[in-house]
Amino acid sequence: MSTFSIGIDLGGTNLRVAAFTSDWKRRGAITTPTRVKDGPGAVLDDMCAAVQQLIADCGESGELAGVGLGSPGPLELPAGRLLQPPNLPGFEDLELKTELEKRLRVPVVVECDANAAALAECHAGAGKKSGYQSLCMLTLGTGVGSGIILNGRVWHGFSGMGGEAGHVPVYHDGLLCGCGSRGCLEQYASATAIARAGQNLFGTRSQNGAGKITARSIAEAAQAGDAESQHIYDGVGQALGIGLASLVSTLNLPLYIIGGGVVAAWQLFAPSMFAELDRGSYIYRLTRPADVAVPEAGKTNVFPAELGPDAGLLGAAMLPFFQSLNS
Amino acid sequence: MSTFSIGIDLGGTNLRVAAFTSDWKRRGAITTPTRVKDGPGAVLDDMCAAVQQLIADCGESGELAGVGLGSPGPLELPAGRLLQPPNLPGFEDLELKTELEKRLRVPVVVECDANAAALAECHAGAGKKSGYQSLCMLTLGTGVGSGIILNGRVWHGFSGMGGEAGHVPVYHDGLLCGCGSRGCLEQYASATAIARAGQNLFGTRSQNGAGKITARSIAEAAQAGDAESQHIYDGVGQALGIGLASLVSTLNLPLYIIGGGVVAAWQLFAPSMFAELDRGSYIYRLTRPADVAVPEAGKTNVFPAELGPDAGLLGAAMLPFFQSLNS
Repeated sequence: MSTFSIGIDLGGTNLRVAAFTSDWKRRGAITTPTRVKDGPGAVLDDMCAAVQQLIADCGESGELAGVGLGSPGPLELPAGRLLQPPNLPGFEDLELKTELEKRLRVPVVVECDANAAALAECHAGAGKKSGYQSLCMLTLGTGVGSGIILNGRVWHGFSGMGGEAGHVPVYHDGLLCGCGSRGCLEQYASATAIARAGQNLFGTRSQNGAGKITARSIAEAAQAGDAESQHIYDGVGQALGIGLASLVSTLNLPLYIIGGGVVAAWQLFAPSMFAELDRGSYIYRLTRPADVAVPEAGKTNVFPAELGPDAGLLGAAMLPFFQSLNS
Repeated sequence: MSTFSIGIDLGGTNLRVAAFTSDWKRRGAITTPTRVKDGPGAVLDDMCAAVQQLIADCGESGELAGVGLGSPGPLELPAGRLLQPPNLPGFEDLELKTELEKRLRVPVVVECDANAAALAECHAGAGKKSGYQSLCMLTLGTGVGSGIILNGRVWHGFSGMGGEAGHVPVYHDGLLCGCGSRGCLEQYASATAIARAGQNLFGTRSQNGAGKITARSIAEAAQAGDAESQHIYDGVGQALGIGLASLVSTLNLPLYIIGGGVVAAWQLFAPSMFAELDRGSYIYRLTRPADVAVPEAGKTNVFPAELGPDAGLLGAAMLPFFQSLNS
């Protein structure tokens, strides 16, 4: 009998649950709004109802290999305990793993959502495509998430906070971050940071007057030839290049992946990102591929993500199959 | 019959070779000047003569487990090929592993000297003392070397350049580094950088007029109460704090070790280092130990090295026993 697994992607807005075969084909999916205001009990109930429904739908054609959950951080791992998640008020100290296992009576693997997305890119996305099993993925969204995969497995560190590269300091004493530090990569390369930079330049309305200014509206203006909007994305690329220089010098991985909504603007930020990385890391200069767009063995490759916004959901379903690395 | 191994520490000034038992007791040692000017052939011959001598001395009481070599970088690993070592002119592209194995007819494991030192601290120094098998060590000497140990084994990355944290950018567009980039940690926390900062302030003579100004003479002046000298070490600590914030946020390791000659001035730079690390990394703030001087499980610990200048030699002898992790 074939096996299947179930992934849960707990977002601040939507709760997505899906079943996948062991070769990562989707068998069924349930999406509901995340009832944050109704509290952790309601959200746990919604998760369990969706999981039970998918087990009922898929159980005849296969055996359940396990359930994985990708959650916003910070989390204590592998215990699977939420700490103080900024996007899930009221969910502080929630024992996600314990509570789900109590309700579902099956083993549940909990992981940071950015780590789950990195795992999916490794085994079914940019990593699989280019043949690498070790990578670091930066997810540029509301914040900058990041995950490190070493030899096909998530690197946790000692308390589950490995790969928080969104909080690598890129400009000493730079912009104040929500984490309380200054100059974190997240303050220069997230969609939030890009929108803020645009609002500082143009006010809150988008350049074409059609709505609120966003990372996307600024990208559209840059693509249409607006120099100031392009300048904002040059800054995104520079910050990413500094952050990547730090990661390349520390980790010497063969693959770095940029994902999240902002990656749609790859053409706008990639030139300054590669220029800064080249300036900032002699290891990158020693291992620079001949063509940055083509994977090259023995070189440091930087690519856009392949899987889009479903990476975290698929990665959650992969968790039962790939034990994490802890220190 | 007991086993022993032989470590070789190839320095720009001295070539040190020693035999160790499998519980890391030294059985014999040979030190000669490194005949850099006589070229790679002469240095390889000196290494092999010393190894053969130690095998002859120790062979009756035990069996040779292997030979390990710690070399200045940059190296291509695990191939064991020197690239362009700045302190070994004329040794470019030398196939250290292949050449030694050809001469010695035993397997030789080659490793970057900073990685070898980190391995020794893990298994016989600060790691063993505090109970951690995963750590990052920064060696503050002529440059800033660094090595990452994950679960007791050296993290190589894909080409042996993992853990080059001396070249993490700490100040964007800061001081020009020998590597060609700007603002690398090495330019603020190496003995060379400290001496240069002192020369910029005081001229080339030490404050007491007894000789050339060095990292050590500046430390002595700071210890005697000189505020400007203390200010230089405050800067060392700040740069280390920024670099550590980057490492803590990326790796989430339980232990970071500061070694090399500069660590003798720990009391001078540690306060500003901890202050900056606390400011710069929310992961450190979440996992800060109650007392920075006492190892604490589940916390981020930063300690001075335990082993002193022999760490690299002992770590080289450990190499045959601990296979490295590659990506």
